[in-house]
Amino acid sequence: MEKNEKHKFMQKVIEMAIRNVEEGKGGPFAAIIVKNGKIIAEGTNMVTSANDPSAHAEITAIRRACKTLKTFHLEDCEIYTSCEPCPMCLGAIYWARISKIYYACNRKDASEAGFDDSKFYEEVCKRPPDRSIKMEKLLSEEGKKAFDKWLQKEDRIPY
Amino acid sequence: MEKNEKHKFMQKVIEMAIRNVEEGKGGPFAAIIVKNGKIIAEGTNMVTSANDPSAHAEITAIRRACKTLKTFHLEDCEIYTSCEPCPMCLGAIYWARISKIYYACNRKDASEAGFDDSKFYEEVCKRPPDRSIKMEKLLSEEGKKAFDKWLQKEDRIPY
Repeated sequence: MEKNEKHKFMQKVIEMAIRNVEEGKGGPFAAIIVKNGKIIAEGTNMVTSANDPSAHAEITAIRRACKTLKTFHLEDCEIYTSCEPCPMCLGAIYWARISKIYYACNRKDASEAGFDDSKFYEEVCKRPPDRSIKMEKLLSEEGKKAFDKWLQKEDRIPY
Repeated sequence: MEKNEKHKFMQKVIEMAIRNVEEGKGGPFAAIIVKNGKIIAEGTNMVTSANDPSAHAEITAIRRACKTLKTFHLEDCEIYTSCEPCPMCLGAIYWARISKIYYACNRKDASEAGFDDSKFYEEVCKRPPDRSIKMEKLLSEEGKKAFDKWLQKEDRIPY
Protein backbone atom coordinates (compact mmCIF):
# COMPACT_ATOMS: atom_id res chain seq x y z
CA MET A 1 0.00 0.00 0.00
CA GLU A 2 1.45 3.41 -0.96
CA LYS A 3 1.87 6.01 1.77
CA ASN A 4 -0.67 8.33 0.12
CA GLU A 5 -3.27 5.58 -0.06
CA LYS A 6 -2.82 4.73 3.62
CA HIS A 7 -3.14 8.38 4.61
CA LYS A 8 -6.26 8.72 2.47
CA PHE A 9 -7.91 5.78 4.24
CA MET A 10 -6.96 7.08 7.68
CA GLN A 11 -8.14 10.59 6.85
CA LYS A 12 -11.52 9.12 5.89
CA VAL A 13 -11.70 7.15 9.15
CA ILE A 14 -10.95 10.28 11.21
CA GLU A 15 -13.68 12.18 9.39
CA MET A 16 -16.12 9.33 10.06
CA ALA A 17 -15.23 9.45 13.78
CA ILE A 18 -15.86 13.20 13.94
CA ARG A 19 -19.18 12.84 12.09
CA ASN A 20 -20.20 10.02 14.46
CA VAL A 21 -19.92 12.45 17.39
CA GLU A 22 -21.74 15.23 15.53
CA GLU A 23 -24.59 12.85 14.73
CA GLY A 24 -24.80 11.62 18.33
CA LYS A 25 -24.44 7.97 17.38
CA GLY A 26 -21.77 7.08 19.95
CA GLY A 27 -18.12 7.61 20.87
CA PRO A 28 -15.49 9.34 18.68
CA PHE A 29 -14.32 6.19 16.93
CA ALA A 30 -14.49 4.80 13.38
CA ALA A 31 -12.90 1.97 11.42
CA ILE A 32 -12.78 0.57 7.90
CA ILE A 33 -11.74 -2.81 6.52
CA VAL A 34 -9.65 -2.76 3.34
CA LYS A 35 -9.06 -5.70 1.01
CA ASN A 36 -6.88 -5.45 -2.11
CA GLY A 37 -6.83 -1.67 -1.77
CA LYS A 38 -10.63 -1.39 -1.64
CA ILE A 39 -12.87 -0.55 1.33
CA ILE A 40 -15.19 -3.50 1.95
CA ALA A 41 -16.79 -2.35 5.22
CA GLU A 42 -17.11 0.69 7.47
CA GLY A 43 -18.08 0.98 11.12
CA THR A 44 -18.46 3.62 13.79
CA ASN A 45 -19.00 3.35 17.53
CA MET A 46 -22.72 2.71 18.13
CA VAL A 47 -22.63 1.68 21.82
CA THR A 48 -25.10 4.24 23.15
CA SER A 49 -27.41 4.48 20.13
CA ALA A 50 -27.66 0.71 19.59
CA ASN A 51 -27.56 -0.22 23.31
CA ASP A 52 -24.74 -2.62 22.55
CA PRO A 53 -21.50 -2.39 24.57
CA SER A 54 -19.78 -4.52 21.91
CA ALA A 55 -20.70 -2.13 19.08
CA HIS A 56 -17.28 -0.50 18.90
CA ALA A 57 -16.13 0.76 15.50
CA GLU A 58 -13.78 -2.15 14.83
CA ILE A 59 -16.27 -4.89 15.74
CA THR A 60 -19.01 -3.16 13.75
CA ALA A 61 -16.72 -3.01 10.68
CA ILE A 62 -15.59 -6.63 11.13
CA ARG A 63 -19.17 -7.89 11.39
CA ARG A 64 -20.14 -6.01 8.23
CA ALA A 65 -17.07 -7.21 6.30
CA CYS A 66 -17.79 -10.81 7.28
CA LYS A 67 -21.43 -10.44 6.27
CA THR A 68 -20.41 -9.02 2.88
CA LEU A 69 -17.80 -11.70 2.21
CA LYS A 70 -19.90 -14.49 3.80
CA THR A 71 -16.99 -15.66 5.94
CA PHE A 72 -15.80 -15.58 9.54
CA HIS A 73 -12.15 -14.97 8.66
CA LEU A 74 -10.61 -11.88 7.06
CA GLU A 75 -7.03 -13.06 6.45
CA ASP A 76 -6.33 -10.81 3.47
CA CYS A 77 -7.81 -7.72 5.05
CA GLU A 78 -6.35 -4.73 6.89
CA ILE A 79 -8.16 -2.55 9.40
CA TYR A 80 -7.82 1.23 9.71
CA THR A 81 -9.08 2.54 13.03
CA SER A 82 -9.11 6.06 14.44
CA CYS A 83 -7.76 4.79 17.77
CA GLU A 84 -5.70 1.82 18.95
CA PRO A 85 -8.18 -1.04 19.43
CA CYS A 86 -9.31 -1.76 23.01
CA PRO A 87 -8.70 -5.33 24.31
CA MET A 88 -12.18 -6.39 23.15
CA CYS A 89 -11.61 -5.13 19.61
CA LEU A 90 -8.03 -6.38 19.48
CA GLY A 91 -9.35 -9.81 20.46
CA ALA A 92 -11.94 -9.61 17.66
CA ILE A 93 -9.19 -8.62 15.19
CA TYR A 94 -7.19 -11.71 16.19
CA TRP A 95 -10.22 -14.00 15.92
CA ALA A 96 -10.98 -12.51 12.48
CA ARG A 97 -7.33 -13.17 11.43
CA ILE A 98 -6.92 -9.64 10.06
CA SER A 99 -3.40 -9.14 8.73
CA LYS A 100 -2.53 -5.57 9.76
CA ILE A 101 -3.79 -2.72 11.97
CA TYR A 102 -3.38 0.97 11.13
CA TYR A 103 -4.35 3.35 13.94
CA ALA A 104 -4.20 7.08 14.63
CA CYS A 105 -4.64 7.79 18.37
CA ASN A 106 -3.63 5.46 21.17
CA ARG A 107 -5.02 4.22 24.50
CA LYS A 108 -3.46 7.20 26.32
CA ASP A 109 -5.31 9.68 24.08
CA ALA A 110 -8.50 7.68 24.71
CA SER A 111 -7.96 7.90 28.48
CA GLU A 112 -7.59 11.66 28.27
CA ALA A 113 -10.98 11.79 26.55
CA GLY A 114 -12.54 9.75 29.37
CA PHE A 115 -12.46 6.21 27.94
CA ASP A 116 -11.39 3.09 29.85
CA ASP A 117 -9.28 1.36 27.18
CA SER A 118 -6.02 1.68 29.09
CA LYS A 119 -7.56 0.55 32.38
CA PHE A 120 -9.14 -2.47 30.69
CA TYR A 121 -5.78 -3.46 29.15
CA GLU A 122 -4.39 -3.54 32.68
CA GLU A 123 -7.34 -5.60 33.93
CA VAL A 124 -7.30 -8.14 31.08
CA CYS A 125 -3.56 -8.71 31.60
CA LYS A 126 -3.86 -9.37 35.35
CA ARG A 127 -4.14 -12.85 36.82
CA PRO A 128 -7.88 -13.63 37.15
CA PRO A 129 -7.86 -13.45 41.01
CA ASP A 130 -6.34 -9.95 40.88
CA ARG A 131 -8.97 -8.39 38.62
CA SER A 132 -11.57 -5.85 39.75
CA ILE A 133 -14.35 -8.14 38.44
CA LYS A 134 -14.50 -11.21 40.62
CA MET A 135 -14.28 -14.58 38.88
CA GLU A 136 -15.46 -17.86 40.41
CA LYS A 137 -14.76 -21.29 38.98
CA LEU A 138 -17.62 -23.80 39.10
CA LEU A 139 -18.17 -27.35 37.78
CA SER A 140 -14.96 -27.34 35.76
CA GLU A 141 -14.83 -31.11 35.29
CA GLU A 142 -18.44 -31.18 34.12
CA GLY A 143 -17.68 -28.29 31.75
CA LYS A 144 -15.09 -30.31 29.87
CA LYS A 145 -17.88 -32.48 28.47
CA ALA A 146 -18.63 -29.69 25.98
CA PHE A 147 -15.04 -29.83 24.73
CA ASP A 148 -15.18 -33.66 24.58
CA LYS A 149 -18.32 -33.37 22.45
CA TRP A 150 -16.52 -30.89 20.16
CA LEU A 151 -13.47 -33.11 19.70
CA GLN A 152 -15.69 -36.10 18.93
CA LYS A 153 -17.59 -34.20 16.23
CA GLU A 154 -16.02 -35.21 12.94
CA ASP A 155 -17.54 -32.40 10.87
CA ARG A 156 -16.68 -29.63 13.32
CA ILE A 157 -15.73 -26.29 11.75
CA PRO A 158 -12.71 -24.75 13.51
CA TYR A 159 -12.30 -21.00 13.66
CA MET B 1 -26.61 -16.50 45.39
CA GLU B 2 -26.84 -19.93 47.06
CA LYS B 3 -24.40 -22.61 46.01
CA ASN B 4 -27.19 -24.78 44.60
CA GLU B 5 -28.53 -21.93 42.50
CA LYS B 6 -25.11 -21.18 41.09
CA HIS B 7 -24.56 -24.83 40.21
CA LYS B 8 -27.98 -25.00 38.57
CA PHE B 9 -27.16 -22.03 36.34
CA MET B 10 -23.77 -23.45 35.40
CA GLN B 11 -25.22 -26.88 34.71
CA LYS B 12 -27.68 -25.26 32.31
CA VAL B 13 -24.86 -23.36 30.56
CA ILE B 14 -22.84 -26.56 30.10
CA GLU B 15 -25.86 -28.32 28.61
CA MET B 16 -26.39 -25.37 26.23
CA ALA B 17 -22.74 -25.62 25.14
CA ILE B 18 -23.06 -29.35 24.43
CA ARG B 19 -26.28 -28.80 22.48
CA ASN B 20 -24.64 -26.01 20.47
CA VAL B 21 -22.08 -28.52 19.19
CA GLU B 22 -24.71 -31.17 18.50
CA GLU B 23 -26.73 -28.67 16.48
CA GLY B 24 -23.66 -27.51 14.53
CA LYS B 25 -24.15 -23.85 15.41
CA GLY B 26 -20.57 -23.13 16.44
CA GLY B 27 -17.97 -23.83 19.12
CA PRO B 28 -18.62 -25.61 22.46
CA PHE B 29 -19.42 -22.47 24.41
CA ALA B 30 -22.51 -21.00 26.07
CA ALA B 31 -23.30 -18.19 28.52
CA ILE B 32 -26.22 -16.71 30.42
CA ILE B 33 -26.75 -13.34 32.08
CA VAL B 34 -28.47 -13.40 35.48
CA LYS B 35 -30.05 -10.43 37.22
CA ASN B 36 -31.68 -10.70 40.66
CA GLY B 37 -31.52 -14.48 40.45
CA LYS B 38 -33.32 -14.63 37.09
CA ILE B 39 -31.91 -15.44 33.64
CA ILE B 40 -32.41 -12.43 31.41
CA ALA B 41 -30.43 -13.57 28.36
CA GLU B 42 -28.76 -16.64 26.89
CA GLY B 43 -26.12 -16.99 24.20
CA THR B 44 -24.10 -19.67 22.48
CA ASN B 45 -21.14 -19.45 20.14
CA MET B 46 -22.44 -18.70 16.63
CA VAL B 47 -19.17 -17.75 14.89
CA THR B 48 -19.36 -20.24 12.04
CA SER B 49 -23.13 -20.32 11.54
CA ALA B 50 -23.57 -16.52 11.67
CA ASN B 51 -20.27 -15.68 9.92
CA ASP B 52 -19.43 -13.37 12.81
CA PRO B 53 -16.08 -13.77 14.60
CA SER B 54 -17.44 -11.66 17.46
CA ALA B 55 -20.43 -13.96 18.03
CA HIS B 56 -18.94 -15.74 21.03
CA ALA B 57 -21.35 -16.94 23.70
CA GLU B 58 -20.64 -14.11 26.15
CA ILE B 59 -20.97 -11.31 23.59
CA THR B 60 -24.13 -12.87 22.19
CA ALA B 61 -25.64 -13.05 25.69
CA ILE B 62 -24.55 -9.47 26.52
CA ARG B 63 -26.08 -8.10 23.32
CA ARG B 64 -29.35 -9.85 24.04
CA ALA B 65 -29.44 -8.74 27.68
CA CYS B 66 -28.81 -5.12 26.66
CA LYS B 67 -31.51 -5.33 24.02
CA THR B 68 -33.98 -6.70 26.56
CA LEU B 69 -33.15 -4.11 29.22
CA LYS B 70 -32.72 -1.28 26.67
CA THR B 71 -29.37 -0.29 28.15
CA PHE B 72 -25.66 -0.49 27.35
CA HIS B 73 -24.61 -1.23 30.95
CA LEU B 74 -25.35 -4.34 33.01
CA GLU B 75 -24.04 -3.30 36.44
CA ASP B 76 -26.37 -5.51 38.47
CA CYS B 77 -25.86 -8.56 36.34
CA GLU B 78 -23.67 -11.65 36.60
CA ILE B 79 -22.48 -13.84 33.74
CA TYR B 80 -22.20 -17.61 33.78
CA THR B 81 -20.01 -18.95 31.00
CA SER B 82 -18.98 -22.51 30.17
CA CYS B 83 -15.36 -21.36 29.71
CA GLU B 84 -13.18 -18.51 30.97
CA PRO B 85 -13.89 -15.56 28.63
CA CYS B 86 -11.33 -14.89 25.89
CA PRO B 87 -9.76 -11.38 25.85
CA MET B 88 -12.46 -10.14 23.45
CA CYS B 89 -15.28 -11.34 25.68
CA LEU B 90 -13.56 -10.23 28.88
CA GLY B 91 -13.23 -6.78 27.34
CA ALA B 92 -16.94 -6.81 26.50
CA ILE B 93 -17.74 -7.85 30.08
CA TYR B 94 -15.75 -4.87 31.39
CA TRP B 95 -17.41 -2.45 28.95
CA ALA B 96 -20.81 -3.82 29.99
CA ARG B 97 -19.88 -3.30 33.68
CA ILE B 98 -21.01 -6.81 34.63
CA SER B 99 -20.41 -7.42 38.33
CA LYS B 100 -19.23 -11.04 38.48
CA ILE B 101 -18.07 -13.88 36.24
CA TYR B 102 -18.74 -17.56 36.91
CA TYR B 103 -16.91 -19.97 34.60
CA ALA B 104 -16.37 -23.72 34.29
CA CYS B 105 -13.40 -24.49 32.02
CA ASN B 106 -10.36 -22.28 31.55
CA ARG B 107 -8.15 -21.08 28.70
CA LYS B 108 -5.91 -24.15 29.05
CA ASP B 109 -8.87 -26.47 28.53
CA ALA B 110 -9.84 -24.38 25.49
CA SER B 111 -6.31 -24.70 24.07
CA GLU B 112 -6.46 -28.47 24.42
CA ALA B 113 -9.66 -28.42 22.35
CA GLY B 114 -7.92 -26.38 19.64
CA PHE B 115 -8.98 -22.81 20.50
CA ASP B 116 -6.64 -19.81 20.54
CA ASP B 117 -7.84 -18.09 23.75
CA SER B 118 -4.58 -18.59 25.60
CA LYS B 119 -2.45 -17.47 22.65
CA PHE B 120 -4.58 -14.36 22.20
CA TYR B 121 -4.19 -13.46 25.90
CA GLU B 122 -0.43 -13.53 25.33
CA GLU B 123 -0.74 -11.38 22.20
CA VAL B 124 -3.08 -8.78 23.74
CA CYS B 125 -0.73 -8.37 26.71
CA LYS B 126 2.38 -7.80 24.59
CA ARG B 127 3.67 -4.35 23.69
CA PRO B 128 2.11 -3.44 20.32
CA PRO B 129 5.44 -3.69 18.39
CA ASP B 130 5.96 -7.24 19.69
CA ARG B 131 2.63 -8.64 18.50
CA SER B 132 2.18 -11.10 15.63
CA ILE B 133 -0.25 -8.67 13.95
CA LYS B 134 1.70 -5.64 12.78
CA MET B 135 0.43 -2.24 13.94
CA GLU B 136 1.30 1.04 12.21
CA LYS B 137 0.56 4.49 13.62
CA LEU B 138 -0.67 7.11 11.13
CA LEU B 139 -1.94 10.71 11.41
CA SER B 140 -2.06 10.61 15.20
CA GLU B 141 -2.27 14.38 15.64
CA GLU B 142 -5.08 14.63 13.10
CA GLY B 143 -6.88 11.77 14.88
CA LYS B 144 -7.12 13.73 18.11
CA LYS B 145 -9.64 16.04 16.43
CA ALA B 146 -12.28 13.33 16.98
CA PHE B 147 -11.55 13.36 20.73
CA ASP B 148 -11.62 17.18 20.75
CA LYS B 149 -15.03 17.07 19.10
CA TRP B 150 -16.20 14.58 21.75
CA LEU B 151 -14.99 16.69 24.68
CA GLN B 152 -16.65 19.79 23.20
CA LYS B 153 -20.01 18.01 22.87
CA GLU B 154 -22.04 19.05 25.91
CA ASP B 155 -24.71 16.36 25.56
CA ARG B 156 -22.27 13.48 25.01
CA ILE B 157 -23.28 10.15 26.55
CA PRO B 158 -20.30 8.45 28.25
CA TYR B 159 -20.12 4.66 28.46
